[in-house]
Amino acid sequence: MLEHTKKAIVVLSGGMDSTTLLYRLLYEGYGEVRAISFDYGQRHKIELERARQTCEALGVKHEVIDISTLMKFISNSALTNPDIDVPEGHYEDNSMQSTVVPNRNMIMASIAIGYAVNIEADVVALGVHAGDHAIYPDCRPEFIACLNAISHIANYRPIQIYTPYLDYDKGDIILDGKKLLVDYSLTHTCYKGNKKACGKCGSCEERLEAFEKAGIKDPIAYEESN
Amino acid sequence: MLEHTKKAIVVLSGGMDSTTLLYRLLYEGYGEVRAISFDYGQRHKIELERARQTCEALGVKHEVIDISTLMKFISNSALTNPDIDVPEGHYEDNSMQSTVVPNRNMIMASIAIGYAVNIEADVVALGVHAGDHAIYPDCRPEFIACLNAISHIANYRPIQIYTPYLDYDKGDIILDGKKLLVDYSLTHTCYKGNKKACGKCGSCEERLEAFEKAGIKDPIAYEESN
Repeated sequence: MLEHTKKAIVVLSGGMDSTTLLYRLLYEGYGEVRAISFDYGQRHKIELERARQTCEALGVKHEVIDISTLMKFISNSALTNPDIDVPEGHYEDNSMQSTVVPNRNMIMASIAIGYAVNIEADVVALGVHAGDHAIYPDCRPEFIACLNAISHIANYRPIQIYTPYLDYDKGDIILDGKKLLVDYSLTHTCYKGNKKACGKCGSCEERLEAFEKAGIKDPIAYEESN
Repeated sequence: MLEHTKKAIVVLSGGMDSTTLLYRLLYEGYGEVRAISFDYGQRHKIELERARQTCEALGVKHEVIDISTLMKFISNSALTNPDIDVPEGHYEDNSMQSTVVPNRNMIMASIAIGYAVNIEADVVALGVHAGDHAIYPDCRPEFIACLNAISHIANYRPIQIYTPYLDYDKGDIILDGKKLLVDYSLTHTCYKGNKKACGKCGSCEERLEAFEKAGIKDPIAYEESN
């Protein structure tokens, strides 16, 4: 457990992992916890609304940082380009590589580190986990180790990268969330971004498997066909 | 000398160092060279216009990426906050620390790497040099080494960070630029951002010293009092 005087920033997508992480930071007793979310023009913008609702419920200061103007320079991803279909099927399939936004985590982490330096925080917490390692190179342990190294030398104020779920799968995260009393009805996972989750995309499939593994009923609504 | 099939991106501020670097990349015979500049709400926005003019003169594709909306989250710097005075005096003085924008180079490099992956480039070139090491932690060799490491693992396409001037001072860069026939009349250095350089801020002082060291007359206009 860290000292109570430390200040932490969490990058909050509004999904299950980063939402659980926010509850974990509050539980760990940081002096202050703030959340930042990124609007990168994602189809599933409803997750930003869920992030806002979670922060409101927890009394956590929340900022949405708009980086959508960057996306035309970096993205051919299905997550932001309406001309590319979101792939269905298993989350770890190769087709899910079309959901990779080049260097997204490094860009978001860089901005989070700058924000942390600016408000004199100590820690940037990221909800990366083992389930993402196969698809997203910028969620792997070697990336996180290197990110932590660079964030200690890039500024006068060293910032610690904190990723307690790095070796967890999503089922493990939900089990942690159960202890932390996470309200999963305020989380969004589906890549298609409709109010009701599709239940079919790789992201939905992974969520449903994780709840099943944890032995908990997923409280969000799915489209009827499921 | 690198293979002619490789594609390079240069982060072009419109100042002397990155402009010289652009000429160097063209000389080194890359298959394609593109330039990107960042609008981060800098006072000295004239440098973006100079970057555009240089690229036009050289027939290089140039993009300006607007990250000014990020700045309110990360910056208390004199370079972007009109309430803070730009310090005068020697460039390596502690007072120049007020010109540090937290994590600026990491943010810009992250975006440049994402852009490079997206257009299938191989190299991101940065004009960092030894004169900046004292003031800006994110210009030091250990930062660049770590940046190069992370940019090789963050994406499916590894990107090489190229900083040929890392150990040069500004005088050495101008001597290289002399061989490369750089048009320094299309470069801007003064932090105050007026059409005529002030000749007094740390940045102007360093530029003038560098031209003197290189034994070349600086072709830009300075305010009369100099």
